[in-house]
Amino acid sequence: MSIQQSHLEQNQVLTSDELLAHWQGHRNLTRKLIEVFPEDHFFKYSIGGMRTFAEMTTELLAIAGPGLKEIVTGQTQEFQEHIDHQNKKDLLLKLWDETTVAINMYFPQIALDSFSKTIKTFGQYEGTVISSILYFIDNEIHHRGQGYVYLRSLGIEPPFFWER
Amino acid sequence: MSIQQSHLEQNQVLTSDELLAHWQGHRNLTRKLIEVFPEDHFFKYSIGGMRTFAEMTTELLAIAGPGLKEIVTGQTQEFQEHIDHQNKKDLLLKLWDETTVAINMYFPQIALDSFSKTIKTFGQYEGTVISSILYFIDNEIHHRGQGYVYLRSLGIEPPFFWER
Repeated sequence: MSIQQSHLEQNQVLTSDELLAHWQGHRNLTRKLIEVFPEDHFFKYSIGGMRTFAEMTTELLAIAGPGLKEIVTGQTQEFQEHIDHQNKKDLLLKLWDETTVAINMYFPQIALDSFSKTIKTFGQYEGTVISSILYFIDNEIHHRGQGYVYLRSLGIEPPFFWER
Repeated sequence: MSIQQSHLEQNQVLTSDELLAHWQGHRNLTRKLIEVFPEDHFFKYSIGGMRTFAEMTTELLAIAGPGLKEIVTGQTQEFQEHIDHQNKKDLLLKLWDETTVAINMYFPQIALDSFSKTIKTFGQYEGTVISSILYFIDNEIHHRGQGYVYLRSLGIEPPFFWER
């Protein structure tokens, strides 16, 4: 069976470019949410004993860039979500934008035939490359949805979900 | 260029089977969330003027089955989220499970070459088939994340996000 045939028979439905655009579209919406948060509430407000949206944001930063770098280089990355942000949104937004650039650089380096390969992200979370990347995205949507509730409970209008 | 070549050159990364399993995994987690909600809070509790989790659930039911049916049959479906649920979770869980069966029936009927085709779901939301299905899933993750905050604010432990 040729490579072409095997891919056709696997019934593939999403291109690498589409997945990258999908991810960055979601990251762009999350960036808007960070921008909309008042600085004090971003770092201090939470509901039901949950984390602040700043803490969720540092988790997302700890996953996206390093997780993708690990997928591309094969080098285990440390899961490092403790960022000395000095309670400044600008600092986290700068890191957010640097991650955007890093993702655009690393993503096209994922070999086509490696999306279905099994890996362990951060040395412990086993899954295929595609399932890992989808998990990164889903986890961001999940926490961002929580940020929407924080904003609504503060009487602040969040950006539209379909604006990417 | 052969069909095989065109698909290889498009650099596809996700199979149809994987996408279906991904969707149903998320739907299974949302089902667990519905189960965990106390019945009265499910239908009445909300934060910041947002909808109840029951209202979000009827939206998800209105999208998933009818949206996919429209993709497969080409027949425009009505967006119908007003369900006479009589404030009974069991009734909505039954509809949830019927939708699970319907998705498993319709999904494999999507032709491989139609995932990149442009459609209008519910006669108005334009996108490709793959972007529409990803939107259905993302919208569910988004609202379910909000349900997590509702539960936490009620002092109730939600299911783990990675349990599908």
